[in-house]
Amino acid sequence: MTIELSDFLLSRKQTIEAKLPQYINELEASNTIKEAMLYSLNAGGKRLRPILVLALLHTYGKREELGMATACAIEMIHTYSLIHDDLPCMDDDDLRRGKPTNHKVFGEAVAVLAGDGLLTQSFSLIVNDPYCSVENKLRLVSELVKAAGAEGMVGGQIADMEGEDTVLTLDELQSVHENKTGKLLQYSIISGAILADAPEEDIEKLRKLGYHLGIAFQIRDDILDIEGNEQKIGKPVGSDTLNEKTTYPKILTMPGAKAKLEEHISQAKDLLENLSVQSNILVQICELIANRDH
Amino acid sequence: MTIELSDFLLSRKQTIEAKLPQYINELEASNTIKEAMLYSLNAGGKRLRPILVLALLHTYGKREELGMATACAIEMIHTYSLIHDDLPCMDDDDLRRGKPTNHKVFGEAVAVLAGDGLLTQSFSLIVNDPYCSVENKLRLVSELVKAAGAEGMVGGQIADMEGEDTVLTLDELQSVHENKTGKLLQYSIISGAILADAPEEDIEKLRKLGYHLGIAFQIRDDILDIEGNEQKIGKPVGSDTLNEKTTYPKILTMPGAKAKLEEHISQAKDLLENLSVQSNILVQICELIANRDH
Repeated sequence: MTIELSDFLLSRKQTIEAKLPQYINELEASNTIKEAMLYSLNAGGKRLRPILVLALLHTYGKREELGMATACAIEMIHTYSLIHDDLPCMDDDDLRRGKPTNHKVFGEAVAVLAGDGLLTQSFSLIVNDPYCSVENKLRLVSELVKAAGAEGMVGGQIADMEGEDTVLTLDELQSVHENKTGKLLQYSIISGAILADAPEEDIEKLRKLGYHLGIAFQIRDDILDIEGNEQKIGKPVGSDTLNEKTTYPKILTMPGAKAKLEEHISQAKDLLENLSVQSNILVQICELIANRDH
Repeated sequence: MTIELSDFLLSRKQTIEAKLPQYINELEASNTIKEAMLYSLNAGGKRLRPILVLALLHTYGKREELGMATACAIEMIHTYSLIHDDLPCMDDDDLRRGKPTNHKVFGEAVAVLAGDGLLTQSFSLIVNDPYCSVENKLRLVSELVKAAGAEGMVGGQIADMEGEDTVLTLDELQSVHENKTGKLLQYSIISGAILADAPEEDIEKLRKLGYHLGIAFQIRDDILDIEGNEQKIGKPVGSDTLNEKTTYPKILTMPGAKAKLEEHISQAKDLLENLSVQSNILVQICELIANRDH
């Protein structure tokens, strides 16, 4: 089966963006907290993580509906992390995807709480998923905590801050990104496989695939910060250099970083070739991550 | 069976305080995030919420070990909420229980992330509880989200901030406290009953009991802010008046607030009398909440 990637991405992005606000609108909570949560959830973005969940169900020939709750839970976690990252005490960003950041609109206190609210709610989506088996729910929550908490994203954010004023080695840089962005991306892939009841051997290959894609994603980010088009990436180029951040091109030179990116994408594709199913869509997503312009 | 309350409280507090750091120490995470999480977890306090979980298991004649994971999860959530509440953008507190607040020691960014880490980890404790049935785990997570998220504690915190510059009615005040502190206290009680496999009719009575105890707890807090001993409550008396906060004594007068407190405690005790089991320890905890001096 072949399918045009751009159609797949657009239609799934629309499905996810139609579903996400429903989980907030149905809450018995004050307008302020709901508006603050919705503001950032509705702020757009590529929706890459939730789309990956659906892409895995698609790959295993299952109804994508089965992945919707977990997909939205991951997007809530990603969104909460952006709200907290943008706070004055963290990255102090005024704009996110061209719109004022959450704390610029609602104030810092509400922004902290909107993030807390999204993080908390995400677990409810999984345990109340009408399609998922009880065993899978527990596994999904347990893996999500590892990906998003102190052993994953939260820990990576701390490591990233601690590394700001020092020059990191390649291993250290890799470890920062593996935790800060890689593990939630990886979780998007393996959660989709778990929901599709994929064979355990496939899940382990997909875990490795997620690792390579996470690193590849970050290398591309670093490259775009130098070679990207400001309007497409939605932020000024050169900000990493300005902030003296350790990046892949800085450690490896630009050609070296591009070679490393190719290496990770090629390892990811090798893993895909050895799954129990063929996945045209995942191969295309690998290529997209290697070549994306935003 | 009668048992001396102070012995019960002290021994359970010690058990909980011995167990709590284990969940953090075993994490594969950086020292910074673990230290920041442990700092606030180890900062003491009455440990009322986790003790309530154990008290429920005790009441139903079950091994208290069965409640330990959930008890610690609740204490992690309570602790994260204190870390975030103390932030400069929220209550801006420098001291908590006589010790510098988390952000004073680790900086604001780490404090935000330590809170995020504790909140995330708490769900892992429940889903990885070695004693709990899968059905109970899912129910406990689902109820915890309602108690701690936008429909509960997080929403209550927002409402509390929004009410700061206005005079609240009794209903509004009650609603703020029901969400901000009541629902997590209530959850401590019903989660213990769920873990004890208590009859559903008991769980519904205990839900009502939790509601009354939550309100009673807050009324006593307001009373202590006026009549309390600074050294015992660990903060200056009169801060509510200074901050022009709406309190129970302000709306009801002091004798009115005390009568209202008695009313809620008496309703709580009536509910206890109609459980399928006798609970000397819960009756004593009700009395403690009504009369506590800190």
